Amino acid sequence: MIMSRTEAASEQARGDLTERLLAGLPTEAVLTDPDVTGSYANDMASFCPAGAPAVVVLPRTVEEVQHVMRTATELRVPVVPQGARTGLSGGANASDGCIVLSLTRMDRILEINPVDRIAVVEPGVINAALSRAVGEHGLYYPPDPSSWEMCTIGGNIGTASGGLCCVKYGVTAEYVLGLDVVLADGRLMTTGRRTAKGVAGYDMTRLFVGSEGSLGIVVRAVLALKPQPPRQLVLAAEFASAAAACDAVCRIMEGGHVPSLLELMDRTTVKAVNDMAHMGLPETTEALLMAAFDTPDPAPDLAAVGALCEAAGATQVVPADDVAESELLLQARRLSLTALEAVRGVTMIDDVCVPRSRLGDLIEGVERIADKHQLTIGVVAHAGDGNTHPTVCFDATDPDESRRARESFDEIMALGLELGGTITGEHGVGVLKKEWLAREIGPVGIEMQRGIKQVFDPLGLLNPGKLF
Amino acid sequence: MIMSRTEAASEQARGDLTERLLAGLPTEAVLTDPDVTGSYANDMASFCPAGAPAVVVLPRTVEEVQHVMRTATELRVPVVPQGARTGLSGGANASDGCIVLSLTRMDRILEINPVDRIAVVEPGVINAALSRAVGEHGLYYPPDPSSWEMCTIGGNIGTASGGLCCVKYGVTAEYVLGLDVVLADGRLMTTGRRTAKGVAGYDMTRLFVGSEGSLGIVVRAVLALKPQPPRQLVLAAEFASAAAACDAVCRIMEGGHVPSLLELMDRTTVKAVNDMAHMGLPETTEALLMAAFDTPDPAPDLAAVGALCEAAGATQVVPADDVAESELLLQARRLSLTALEAVRGVTMIDDVCVPRSRLGDLIEGVERIADKHQLTIGVVAHAGDGNTHPTVCFDATDPDESRRARESFDEIMALGLELGGTITGEHGVGVLKKEWLAREIGPVGIEMQRGIKQVFDPLGLLNPGKLF
Repeated sequence: MIMSRTEAASEQARGDLTERLLAGLPTEAVLTDPDVTGSYANDMASFCPAGAPAVVVLPRTVEEVQHVMRTATELRVPVVPQGARTGLSGGANASDGCIVLSLTRMDRILEINPVDRIAVVEPGVINAALSRAVGEHGLYYPPDPSSWEMCTIGGNIGTASGGLCCVKYGVTAEYVLGLDVVLADGRLMTTGRRTAKGVAGYDMTRLFVGSEGSLGIVVRAVLALKPQPPRQLVLAAEFASAAAACDAVCRIMEGGHVPSLLELMDRTTVKAVNDMAHMGLPETTEALLMAAFDTPDPAPDLAAVGALCEAAGATQVVPADDVAESELLLQARRLSLTALEAVRGVTMIDDVCVPRSRLGDLIEGVERIADKHQLTIGVVAHAGDGNTHPTVCFDATDPDESRRARESFDEIMALGLELGGTITGEHGVGVLKKEWLAREIGPVGIEMQRGIKQVFDPLGLLNPGKLF
Repeated sequence: MIMSRTEAASEQARGDLTERLLAGLPTEAVLTDPDVTGSYANDMASFCPAGAPAVVVLPRTVEEVQHVMRTATELRVPVVPQGARTGLSGGANASDGCIVLSLTRMDRILEINPVDRIAVVEPGVINAALSRAVGEHGLYYPPDPSSWEMCTIGGNIGTASGGLCCVKYGVTAEYVLGLDVVLADGRLMTTGRRTAKGVAGYDMTRLFVGSEGSLGIVVRAVLALKPQPPRQLVLAAEFASAAAACDAVCRIMEGGHVPSLLELMDRTTVKAVNDMAHMGLPETTEALLMAAFDTPDPAPDLAAVGALCEAAGATQVVPADDVAESELLLQARRLSLTALEAVRGVTMIDDVCVPRSRLGDLIEGVERIADKHQLTIGVVAHAGDGNTHPTVCFDATDPDESRRARESFDEIMALGLELGGTITGEHGVGVLKKEWLAREIGPVGIEMQRGIKQVFDPLGLLNPGKLF
């Protein structure tokens, strides 16, 4: 093989980089085989460009991460931090010649304290592993993204992940009390606290949550926990129109109820789930709403919510008889995105959040957009939060269908902004929504955000090309 | 009167400043009489230096605030934003020759939306006024600083205020969804959202919450609301030692209870409240613990908590018979700081928050510090959060007692840090704790925080001399 001068130079640089990295990392923590490193190029987003990493590193200690960042700064090599790569916006996609910094091997739960109701964890801990571990102490770590069996706490922090429980318990951001962060130049900074409250200086912890690896590398997190609530009981309600289901959502929230979950699946989604998993959901429905309560006595709330659903035009209201039946319904909900993927082979999952009073307008608008582009768009929604995932199903081998998919995806974001919403409720900006971030927050906002980026990462090495 | 050349120049500059301000503000919104402007020099903190403002402005509109900031930037005049000046750290104290920007006249509640559970308010709205207004819609704005009948939402946002309900409902920061902010140069920036969730870009909203007016002027806020819970029922428990009361706090929190309030008053505080308000609290107590629940049926929790208190050594457990009796107990708690002020004339109110498992160590340490300095230090605490207000009572006319008061105040912060806590749980840094902030967050943290300040306020005009 004959290399050009540029290729030879780049090969040489890569060799230097690897050698420098190996000075502070064990051999098995530095991967350079292109077949292997190539498998770290992408997260789970569709249609987001990704480059070829120069090297993948898998540190196990804070000191090793510091060594990686020092090396990156000295050699001016970009660094892309990664968790489990379950993200849906390309935020963890590699850039050409970068160091992929995978935090998956830093997966220790360092402390669980039931009096202080905190856990201290490394970033590579799997969300479900933490949930189970704290559960053994009677505690509860609420944030539950659909990928919770795979995704890492570090990734959750990077994207400020949400999930099904947010309507009652809020998002990841509300559970991060303090962080240890390795800065771009390798220095270690501690933010926040171990205490329930604290207002010493600017809230740097929250600045890092949702910053998509662009400000520093989270190497340790102090997380707030709640006492484990009783298992939730779910009620399902069928509606003859999505509008009626959205009306029910408004009535429930206006009525002062605090469901632990309030989810909506449209007809397309229900059918997709049945097709894939034969779950026997009612296919005659135009919209299926699920509400749950995890209070000691959920009966009064469930009865009241059932009545509100009927008042909004529900054709059938079915309270789950027990926790097992409730779990089955939730299982159906959790399978939605996978099931929609099977419809045409590929999906683009949008993540538009609107004020919940505008939920009906959003869903109606999505139907209009689907009609216009002759596409199947299934809508699943964390309805109680107004956070919808209109999911565009398409055949990626058909260029025209792909183009229409992309257009409809963008039109849904435009609609979300029009309705007073945001382009992303919980998935983040990544590369997928970069242009849209500027539209949402405007030039002054972008200028200030870039200013902050500059403070933490003056050389622009951390996850370049994301967010802005 | 003969003026020196410097005085004459400064008089001239002040005249220019006033004239420029009047170009965009009505006459009654610009105060220059030194007797009047002098009354805006201080917040409620003891021993914090304050300068003499050149002028006080009282804008009513966003445009007027923009005019003030443009003028300040052009003439390089520092600006000190103020709410009701109930702060306890000197964060709103004037600096010499500054513009005091009082937001108290921007006091409109612009929107209350029960479906979206949000309120949109101007910064000068009084906390209690908002609470009452949303209460009429069955809604609840939880943050309840002790000064809630006087303090403004803008001030609450500036200091990320807490209160009695935080143990269940969290602090102000968790209720601020979005902000309109006038930047130092007069430009308007919108942060955040009206939606329940949103992760578009860095969390600029949270960056402003608790920034003590050092990054920009909050002129509008979108606040999250909760449904109004049932009125809480309070249980009071007497203990023969503060350590036993702290043990009870740990047992209650470890037991998975979620009190809507968990407050501690020590003997000194109980006596002070009785002396002032003749409330008939039990003076034989070494510590009085109050726990409350606002669930539909608080009886099981109250019974369980009562039993835990007894197990921890409570000498008496008294559940309030009804809401009225509960309110009376809370009234006593809310009067604590005022009552302690009466003990020796002046107080320095500390605000140290420790992991709640270390609460006992903190209180024991405070007793040691009080003994050493021969001072009366009353402790009131949001015990469920580990957030204590050791309150140093002293006679400000006695220089030696004043010196000892200051020393003990500092020793309490040092102790808080030693125990893994923070120097401020809810009062902020202001001028009072500037040196301590550096100790808590370290040189890297300070460097990054200064970097952020520089992005928003490159000329250093916004609330100079605070925080850092």
